[in-house]
Amino acid sequence: MISAPSIKPFFPPQRTLMGPGPSDVYPQVVHALSKPTIGHLDPEFIRMMDELKALLQYAFQTQNPMTLAVSAPGSAGMETCFVNLVEPGDTVIVCRNGVFGERMRQNVERVGATPVVVDNAWGEPVDPTAVEAALKAHPEAKFVAFVHAETSTGALSDAKTLAALARQYDCLSIVDAVTSLGGVELRVDEWGIDAIYSGSQKCLSCVPGLSPVSFSDRAVEQIKARKSPCQSWFLDQSLVMGYWSGDGKRSYHHTAPVNALYALHESLRLLAEEGLEQAWARHKAQHQALAAGLADLNIEFIVEADYRLPQLNTVKVPGGVDDAAIRGRLLNEFNLEVGAGLGDLAGKAWRIGLMGYGARSENVALCLQALKQVLR
Amino acid sequence: MISAPSIKPFFPPQRTLMGPGPSDVYPQVVHALSKPTIGHLDPEFIRMMDELKALLQYAFQTQNPMTLAVSAPGSAGMETCFVNLVEPGDTVIVCRNGVFGERMRQNVERVGATPVVVDNAWGEPVDPTAVEAALKAHPEAKFVAFVHAETSTGALSDAKTLAALARQYDCLSIVDAVTSLGGVELRVDEWGIDAIYSGSQKCLSCVPGLSPVSFSDRAVEQIKARKSPCQSWFLDQSLVMGYWSGDGKRSYHHTAPVNALYALHESLRLLAEEGLEQAWARHKAQHQALAAGLADLNIEFIVEADYRLPQLNTVKVPGGVDDAAIRGRLLNEFNLEVGAGLGDLAGKAWRIGLMGYGARSENVALCLQALKQVLR
Repeated sequence: MISAPSIKPFFPPQRTLMGPGPSDVYPQVVHALSKPTIGHLDPEFIRMMDELKALLQYAFQTQNPMTLAVSAPGSAGMETCFVNLVEPGDTVIVCRNGVFGERMRQNVERVGATPVVVDNAWGEPVDPTAVEAALKAHPEAKFVAFVHAETSTGALSDAKTLAALARQYDCLSIVDAVTSLGGVELRVDEWGIDAIYSGSQKCLSCVPGLSPVSFSDRAVEQIKARKSPCQSWFLDQSLVMGYWSGDGKRSYHHTAPVNALYALHESLRLLAEEGLEQAWARHKAQHQALAAGLADLNIEFIVEADYRLPQLNTVKVPGGVDDAAIRGRLLNEFNLEVGAGLGDLAGKAWRIGLMGYGARSENVALCLQALKQVLR
Repeated sequence: MISAPSIKPFFPPQRTLMGPGPSDVYPQVVHALSKPTIGHLDPEFIRMMDELKALLQYAFQTQNPMTLAVSAPGSAGMETCFVNLVEPGDTVIVCRNGVFGERMRQNVERVGATPVVVDNAWGEPVDPTAVEAALKAHPEAKFVAFVHAETSTGALSDAKTLAALARQYDCLSIVDAVTSLGGVELRVDEWGIDAIYSGSQKCLSCVPGLSPVSFSDRAVEQIKARKSPCQSWFLDQSLVMGYWSGDGKRSYHHTAPVNALYALHESLRLLAEEGLEQAWARHKAQHQALAAGLADLNIEFIVEADYRLPQLNTVKVPGGVDDAAIRGRLLNEFNLEVGAGLGDLAGKAWRIGLMGYGARSENVALCLQALKQVLR
């Protein structure tokens, strides 16, 4: 026998999470998470799942029947959209202005399709004019994929215009709303978005591990009309829908992450209780308070004011300052997590999240005062 | 605006979970689950992840460095093994004696490989003689895939012999240990298993949503020698290992399901504290107590005594008894969940789980007395 390691229970410190996610979790969500586990085919659980679908539809502002939570993190939500919709040989316009646009491109390649990349600089929004030019140059394109809120740069793109462009050129839109859902205006039906995915651990302030997704009827038709089977068994929505369909049958596909789904139900319930528009306004107000304080500290934003995500403030590491040392001091002295730069911005940026439950005055105050002290 | 649904907090009933999983969760695991969420790149979290790897290695009885938990349920663990190891055009011997062997076959097809199916009847173990005949008939085969403990039938197969056969014919073994890990003898290194996956919600008595996996060095070589990239981005182990490698870097791949990983850490810690061999013996003892009581009620097992899983007792629905009505009464009158039959056994079998924390005298007593009353 390989002998048993002697390991003590783990007690994590109490952090204030102001990075790019996971964000501070609502206390009520922590409570929901620890409710008794029941079976994923239990009638009580199925009733909860019906409520969860209604709550997801509200958060996405959609009436899409095919709205559900993938039993895995946002990256799996991304993959769910690509492997179900895109077939080998298809052409996909991929807008790339940060890490997650690049990840979309990799997803397109892995389904054996052809990505046509429309690049914008890191920190800039996607340029609709460039997307339209690509659509004109590639009449064979079937999809337009873009990131609504780029988590790696803090830039907000105009999802309404981009989704409308996709429709105009008879393409389906695939939208990354991992960081946007619950934090900024997003209207799936009104804007005509066809496939969208998000994550539980950003502006929903739930624990990480689930990915809300929604597919329009046009997208569902595309899935049904596939010539080849979906390459993933786990993410195949034609199978998953047997469980989420709400026809009362809930046939077994995989064991649902029961407790995480309790948590998502509660976080979406709190969002519905607050109201989406109120949540958007709260994120904006807290962002403005943070931005004013950062200006006093002479800390500059990377993104132009018009395109800044209120929920993810990407700022320049001040000249002569040791990025990692400062983040380490914030963590060790103040239990405050602030995000590092990713990809092109590694070492050059901090990402300060004000997401969901984290978008509160006390978090803004802590962050400003702690930064002031460690930068002194 | 689509208006907000008015939904109350969800309070699940307190069930006793004696189905095929999820199983009763340890109270300590529920507590671990609700500890404060910290970042997945936090030094404290990374320390916990190092411990988690050691605990997983102990549970699997392996020193494989590539041992980790996939951030999704067991079905994703299955897919992780197939999409990383198997390439288009490869031949895979797939042993099918229940639902999960069939699911393996579907996974093989979805990677564009050729399954050679070795069938055994539902309720029977995999027959090594038939597997050897298939290996002889298909010298091109590169993999042998089988289910150690068939969750759909309650039959235990001889993983040691099957893994040895695979090696003898220069194949890699891919083993489903979703229901076996922690419940019956399993020794990955000693038996020479190459790729194995499990689930958190069976004999580990953790919440559902995670899939422990382990790859031998031979399997890792195979992954490194792939001619084509892994078709899944989310499950690509060459990317995931950047986070789990334990070289102190922990580069970002996806946001880890932080709280669920706390829970898995605690459940594996409790298993290590009890001792694997003690846990196996406890499952066996509780199974014997249940079997004796079921005999008194004239309830017959589907599987022969030699191949019965102690942790999943599959029995015949007695003649003239309404399957669904009885399970409904157990649930409604006793808050006791017992599993229905799946696939070929739908309507004909009950699956009574004694998994992990659920393998306790009080659960056996409740189940026997409740069954006695509702069958009266």
